[in-house]
Amino acid sequence: MTAPLHHAGFFGFDVFGTVVDWRSGVARAARPFLQRYGIGVDPFAFADQWRALYQPAMEQVRTGARPWVRLDVLQRENLELLLARHGADVATLAEDELADLNRAWERLDPWPDAVAGLTRIRRRFPIGTVSNSHVAGMVQLARFGGLAWDAILGAEMAHDYKPQPQVYLKSADVAGVPPHRFVLVAAHNGDLRAARACGLRTVFVPRPLEHGPGQDTDLEAEDDWDLVAGDFLELADLLGCP
Amino acid sequence: MTAPLHHAGFFGFDVFGTVVDWRSGVARAARPFLQRYGIGVDPFAFADQWRALYQPAMEQVRTGARPWVRLDVLQRENLELLLARHGADVATLAEDELADLNRAWERLDPWPDAVAGLTRIRRRFPIGTVSNSHVAGMVQLARFGGLAWDAILGAEMAHDYKPQPQVYLKSADVAGVPPHRFVLVAAHNGDLRAARACGLRTVFVPRPLEHGPGQDTDLEAEDDWDLVAGDFLELADLLGCP
Repeated sequence: MTAPLHHAGFFGFDVFGTVVDWRSGVARAARPFLQRYGIGVDPFAFADQWRALYQPAMEQVRTGARPWVRLDVLQRENLELLLARHGADVATLAEDELADLNRAWERLDPWPDAVAGLTRIRRRFPIGTVSNSHVAGMVQLARFGGLAWDAILGAEMAHDYKPQPQVYLKSADVAGVPPHRFVLVAAHNGDLRAARACGLRTVFVPRPLEHGPGQDTDLEAEDDWDLVAGDFLELADLLGCP
Repeated sequence: MTAPLHHAGFFGFDVFGTVVDWRSGVARAARPFLQRYGIGVDPFAFADQWRALYQPAMEQVRTGARPWVRLDVLQRENLELLLARHGADVATLAEDELADLNRAWERLDPWPDAVAGLTRIRRRFPIGTVSNSHVAGMVQLARFGGLAWDAILGAEMAHDYKPQPQVYLKSADVAGVPPHRFVLVAAHNGDLRAARACGLRTVFVPRPLEHGPGQDTDLEAEDDWDLVAGDFLELADLLGCP
């Protein structure tokens, strides 16, 4: 392993895509809903479309066009928007079913290596989330998937969304370590670029199935990140975590 | 158990005194330090005196006389104040040893029932800290004692100190539950009074040795808290957590 990570004080993880498989989980939750209401769209396409609305919605907050709101609020607005696009009359849908579908983002399976890898890394380093999700959603997701974090950091404590610098800097600050001892682990080169610009250390772990079988982004490291690992088990190996 | 707690959404725990035995742990860390520098004070008395400076220091922040600072900053100032009172020339003491002694608050033993009780409660309910400590200190303390929290909540995210209402309300807000579904567990009646005034549910667990063998405060419930349990194992029983 590279020298800087030996002295890391905290490992922060991007979550959606890096730790958990959002596409399969959202499609799994959407399938019965779409069938029940006769909405004719493939559940995986629906997951992709819902996810595609995620960045523009956060951008409203990043630019200051809209005051801070939590991710579950944005996801719910996007869900209604997407259902309407597919011809649904949202006002006629059952509120509890809409709320339940919105919580699909709290019931996503970890990638197969994630729990075992995190468990090993955590024996040696404190670990936490650096996600754009709200804290409560991360708590539920961790309980669903058996992820044991030392702390939930990220967007909510900065009241802004990645890749805004404040999210990385606030996460390191709250973790009690200087940026150069805070490591971001992510499957997204853009996330790592923003973290590096803030002085954080960076680890890339590709997740070539995040966007399904046709994925053509983030298949490999696009910069000389401090470390690149095939998955979290290899990362644990590289960090010397037995 | 009482009906309201059946529907609880989150259990928040006071930590110093309620979950961990600060007095023994601080005395244990202080003893060799005091001996090395020939400071003639009993380590338990030293722990009590250090702790006694804690409320007045936080009060400065609560009243707005001083901007928000983290608890480790206040503890460090109080440590230097106390050492000076005992005749030490603080400027001559080794910085790394002072910093290490200040971290005594991150190396405190959980009460004997705490880890087993929390483990059982967590199987059914999300659990977290609602402490006046900074997040990083809570992370280290949890790792030292084997405490598995779902989230670290409390003072730092409110930028104020208990018993200010904002600390309880912000903790419930971040946990994603309304105050009446957020339960505070504490060994201190005053903490519970403030939490109840915010609409939270309340559980009292006496810790009759928190202040040592002569303790004369918080030996019993002083109000009709939602639940009173002898320790965390009994609390787990009362909550139906096997």
